[in-house]
Amino acid sequence: MTTFVLFGGTGDLAKRKIIPALYSAFVNGRLDSEFKFIGAAREALSHEEFRQRVSDSISQYAGKVVGGSAEKLAAFLACTDYAKIDARVPEDFAILKNSLHTSASNATLFYLATGPDIFIPVVEQLSKHGLVEGNARVVVEKPLGRDAQSAKEINQSLRNYLDEHQIYRIDHYLGKEMVQNLLALRFANSFLEPLWNRKWIQDVQISISEQVGVESRGDFYDHTGALRDMVQNHLLQLVSIVAMEPPVNANPDAIRDEKVKVLRALRKFTNEEVSKKTVRGQYRAGAVDGKPVIAYQAEPGVPPASRTETFVAIRAEIDNWRWAGVPFYLRTGKRMASRSAEITINFKPIPYSIFGQSQGPMRSNRLVITLQPEESVQLFMKAKEPGEGIRLSDVALNLDFAEASNLRRVESYERLLLDAMHGDLTLFVRDDELNAAWSWIDPIMNAWQNDSEGLKSYIAGSWGPAAASYLLAQHGAAWGEEYVES
Amino acid sequence: MTTFVLFGGTGDLAKRKIIPALYSAFVNGRLDSEFKFIGAAREALSHEEFRQRVSDSISQYAGKVVGGSAEKLAAFLACTDYAKIDARVPEDFAILKNSLHTSASNATLFYLATGPDIFIPVVEQLSKHGLVEGNARVVVEKPLGRDAQSAKEINQSLRNYLDEHQIYRIDHYLGKEMVQNLLALRFANSFLEPLWNRKWIQDVQISISEQVGVESRGDFYDHTGALRDMVQNHLLQLVSIVAMEPPVNANPDAIRDEKVKVLRALRKFTNEEVSKKTVRGQYRAGAVDGKPVIAYQAEPGVPPASRTETFVAIRAEIDNWRWAGVPFYLRTGKRMASRSAEITINFKPIPYSIFGQSQGPMRSNRLVITLQPEESVQLFMKAKEPGEGIRLSDVALNLDFAEASNLRRVESYERLLLDAMHGDLTLFVRDDELNAAWSWIDPIMNAWQNDSEGLKSYIAGSWGPAAASYLLAQHGAAWGEEYVES
Repeated sequence: MTTFVLFGGTGDLAKRKIIPALYSAFVNGRLDSEFKFIGAAREALSHEEFRQRVSDSISQYAGKVVGGSAEKLAAFLACTDYAKIDARVPEDFAILKNSLHTSASNATLFYLATGPDIFIPVVEQLSKHGLVEGNARVVVEKPLGRDAQSAKEINQSLRNYLDEHQIYRIDHYLGKEMVQNLLALRFANSFLEPLWNRKWIQDVQISISEQVGVESRGDFYDHTGALRDMVQNHLLQLVSIVAMEPPVNANPDAIRDEKVKVLRALRKFTNEEVSKKTVRGQYRAGAVDGKPVIAYQAEPGVPPASRTETFVAIRAEIDNWRWAGVPFYLRTGKRMASRSAEITINFKPIPYSIFGQSQGPMRSNRLVITLQPEESVQLFMKAKEPGEGIRLSDVALNLDFAEASNLRRVESYERLLLDAMHGDLTLFVRDDELNAAWSWIDPIMNAWQNDSEGLKSYIAGSWGPAAASYLLAQHGAAWGEEYVES
Repeated sequence: MTTFVLFGGTGDLAKRKIIPALYSAFVNGRLDSEFKFIGAAREALSHEEFRQRVSDSISQYAGKVVGGSAEKLAAFLACTDYAKIDARVPEDFAILKNSLHTSASNATLFYLATGPDIFIPVVEQLSKHGLVEGNARVVVEKPLGRDAQSAKEINQSLRNYLDEHQIYRIDHYLGKEMVQNLLALRFANSFLEPLWNRKWIQDVQISISEQVGVESRGDFYDHTGALRDMVQNHLLQLVSIVAMEPPVNANPDAIRDEKVKVLRALRKFTNEEVSKKTVRGQYRAGAVDGKPVIAYQAEPGVPPASRTETFVAIRAEIDNWRWAGVPFYLRTGKRMASRSAEITINFKPIPYSIFGQSQGPMRSNRLVITLQPEESVQLFMKAKEPGEGIRLSDVALNLDFAEASNLRRVESYERLLLDAMHGDLTLFVRDDELNAAWSWIDPIMNAWQNDSEGLKSYIAGSWGPAAASYLLAQHGAAWGEEYVES
């Protein structure tokens, strides 16, 4: 049987993501029959009070769960308990231990959906009470550090109490269906991998744009910024999956061995390169989807003179044989024109057109992997329009899963929770990956700190500062939305 | 203005294909306003009687023409005349000449939808009456010869009266939308051509299967056989388009220069190779679509002991740098299990699966271009099934023109008629192509004549003799329909 202990069980992430994901797994029979869920937090709540919150969370956020019902919910709540735990009170862990012992759990998953300052105290107490021996696993959420040094310290502290194979550093972008599909597309097909290199690929663009601002997290966000909040983790993880060499097999460490090689091959920027190859921005007042929104500096919890970036664009390069000279354009921002997360592989143009110039400029082939708002894979190519003569137009080959399969789609949190319960580390971040990512981020952060002029402003609801367009334009490239389709 | 003179104007091909195609072009405004259509045949018919037949043909075979109406039909018939012409009666051509002169035609297209024995007499008379000077063009239908020698003679005779650029040898497979699309797919996209060679392609299969038998053409067919009727023209034309090098431009002779190079590079078989690399068959009684059908030898017009083949399968090879060692499997037959015409490019399997053997045997990637019954392009690849773990399944990327475009589709005969009227030779067969095709066919025919044992029988409604499966199986390959999809 599996026991799932959720620290931060009354928090926002628990409510919005983790509890609904757990319920979905339960409803779909993915949890064993003796499964036990223990919410843990500092508040003094009865089991019943916590169950009510769980029930509320599910009715609010698990609306799409197929197969849910009042009976299923009751059964789920029957597996649910609460433990009042303060990370600084050892006795609380003794009580937790007793409740776990009673249930003779043989596989316990501790999920730390708390602030990072609590990680080490919690893990220390778990260790001292003998709770992380054997099959126990610990899931930790971002942010894991503020820079290379602090990340290293956190990793070392975790490793004082845990083996690396017990540590599940979650990055929910890795749980997305299309990210995993990218592995299948690349390594189960013979016709993509021969083209997957500097000879045939012009550039790679990875863009995650949000329409939301900082919401209620103004204070936290202002101490973090987009580079730490999005680039260091999600964007670099996507880069490593797109760019990795074929692993020797599909085992977790074989895949992570290849991912970390990519992260280490990312060219570290000098101060001068940072000013040429990065753009950072902060939104001012504007409108998103036609509704006026306030400036970042006016957000609650944000200092009026804040210099924190809410937008980043970077021209990254990977120094290895496969990718030398191929730009990886990374971009993320808040208060952007639309919500989307896309990986675009732009293939090189054809070397010569036998059809002459009469066709007008032709956008070259591209593979677009969309992670948000809907997951899809599209291959854009030229085909002849029906009718006389040869007129070419852009046509999308769609990999349509709705059509191809009636299998249930699994949301990323559910997928990752189940993987952690089953002990599958493939989609979790290893310590050396984390260190390598921070090592690439550090020089950028440092250069920015010494260059307060570099922060551009952009209108909320736009695609970011104009400098982000120029970053590509000077190399003859453009972001996907800048193309006007004929 | 354009004048279109149709010899064989009362024949079957005229009725089923050419007149409906002409009407469709007319309805869709593709013919100039002073367009004139003259039907010509030996029968003594009044203009009115011929117009009635045209009208009948249209109501019977042009049902799908978008935009047709009683008014359009009346307008079309008002452009239609009849000329009684016997190829051996010079006076008949004098009368034709007068009617053409009256209309001051400056672009005349003569379409010879007659038996091949009439081609030369008609062209000779046209020439003697000065009707094939300047802009005049002549369209000729298959069969153009019975072997290399007779084809050469026909070509030479035609060239006594016509320049090569006036001769439009029609092969209606070249008018199919997807065949032209193949040129666009190959040469307007950067991601197919790098893979389009021996390094990445396992084999190419071109299969044209018919469900019909010989219908009313038993006598003709028995003197022809599948090799001459289908392989020498349609199948080899498709081979040349699939296998050609990139032409210097999209001009007719640039494309035909490359096509003929392919035909010349086809390895000519020795007698021994013919017995190893070709399979011929003749259908015996069976059932097609659940309905019993008679044997070929029982068909009207077919001698009871006929040894004519109604099925051919060939393992062809192209001796050049691009294709050395890549089999081109060609197949055609009558009374087959289903009606289809397909070009399948089978890519090589991936060199190594990181996903292990748990996935079961994987069919490798393939591009399937379907010409019949519906035209389509599909790229089959492996993708991850939604859900936990990595389970791969075959998914088709569909190039969907119905979705991609609301442009009118043009049937192959209409397309080719319009091309001929516009003087575009791209999709017509040049004399050297014809000669090269026959030069490859001759050794096969000769070997078969000396090996009466080689003819296998197959049950009507099957996929042909078992030997056709063995032809591929001995090289580890299989025809498309032999795969059982998991």
